[in-house]
Amino acid sequence: MNLFYTTETPGDFFTLNSEESKHIIRVLRMKSGDSIRFTDGKGFFYDCEITDPNPKACQLKLIKKSEGSDKRPFRLHIAIAPTKNISRFEWFLEKATEIGIDRITPIICDHSERKEIKINRLERVIIAAMKQSLKSNLPELNYANNFREFINQPFSGQKFIAYIDDGVKLELSKTYQPTKNALVLIGPEGDFSPDEVQQAINQGFQPVKLGPSRLRTETAGVVACHTINLLSLLQASSLED
Amino acid sequence: MNLFYTTETPGDFFTLNSEESKHIIRVLRMKSGDSIRFTDGKGFFYDCEITDPNPKACQLKLIKKSEGSDKRPFRLHIAIAPTKNISRFEWFLEKATEIGIDRITPIICDHSERKEIKINRLERVIIAAMKQSLKSNLPELNYANNFREFINQPFSGQKFIAYIDDGVKLELSKTYQPTKNALVLIGPEGDFSPDEVQQAINQGFQPVKLGPSRLRTETAGVVACHTINLLSLLQASSLED
Repeated sequence: MNLFYTTETPGDFFTLNSEESKHIIRVLRMKSGDSIRFTDGKGFFYDCEITDPNPKACQLKLIKKSEGSDKRPFRLHIAIAPTKNISRFEWFLEKATEIGIDRITPIICDHSERKEIKINRLERVIIAAMKQSLKSNLPELNYANNFREFINQPFSGQKFIAYIDDGVKLELSKTYQPTKNALVLIGPEGDFSPDEVQQAINQGFQPVKLGPSRLRTETAGVVACHTINLLSLLQASSLED
Repeated sequence: MNLFYTTETPGDFFTLNSEESKHIIRVLRMKSGDSIRFTDGKGFFYDCEITDPNPKACQLKLIKKSEGSDKRPFRLHIAIAPTKNISRFEWFLEKATEIGIDRITPIICDHSERKEIKINRLERVIIAAMKQSLKSNLPELNYANNFREFINQPFSGQKFIAYIDDGVKLELSKTYQPTKNALVLIGPEGDFSPDEVQQAINQGFQPVKLGPSRLRTETAGVVACHTINLLSLLQASSLED
């Protein structure tokens, strides 16, 4: 089953733009009466039926609106330095979206080799991953932030800075309190600078490590994302038992 | 710090082949007296010193042999269908090696779109990931196996088949007993066929899901790998507390 994304909330009857219409009618060869499921990326699915298969202005009728089941009882925000090789960063965006994340902020750090990103391209990666994994919530992708400005912003929940240093003894998995909101900072290839670590600690971020392995930036992001989700899932299911 | 891989166990004095010698002396511009760390991929590091920086036959002296700290108290074997787009499979190999895995078997399934793999290329991905994450154990990569032949092989530990089906209620994270050996089967893009699932169950594999999200093949592999490692780490550290 395909899932489509719409930035406009479908009404009882609505018309797709020419690009979407062409894709649905010419490429996917859908016909009058065929069913299409949309998501608004805000937690809802819209099951629709094609009423006029016009390849320039396909018309649809809304059959049913329903709530997605991919909403989690906590918010996860990962602020991560874009990698020098942008495909590694895109891989993180795709995997985090599949696994489950609410917000991603690219952060520019002292040791960042990449200082610029193309936000539209990254947004498309996230939309594709949401559709592919049939989710109804589109993670929010922020514009790139400077590290020092970012850590001063308020956040309601646990705040962590993950980095590689033998002095860091606490594991994220032992420090995170499942189902609480979490914000995790992940550094660039050269990791955070000592000054960045100190400033984050001053702002209430807890220094943590992500297991015994030395992970690449994008792997650290995925591992942090899965750790938070898995521990919260385990906690929720143990309460149900 | 760079880590080098050697398939031969370094003796007290040894000579590198011409390719490695050229890389170390011409590309990395290392000199007489410089230190180099090797791993044999079998759990050991070898700290050496260059005695003759010959770009065709670099000679080294062994200074110290030490055991790596990346050995885990259990064995993790993931048998996974290669993806149609092989770069996704290579991502899985790289990430699983970084996070921690002992053995990987590519399995050819009923719904596999890709039936052939280039084992040498995949082996290089694993070696690069081991070196990059400074590990001393090289995961074992098997030749591709037919699914039905593979599941008949003996395995000492818990056996799981992960797939997407609303009927699967058990979570891997609730079923896996931390620090036990584990073998996890991950299917291709079209998932396992009903007959494959039944045959695996007949062979003692437990059907499990990997959380609430619909994951791509390579994401499922990474998530399974991290789940087993994380739960075992948590168990080990709770015993230490």
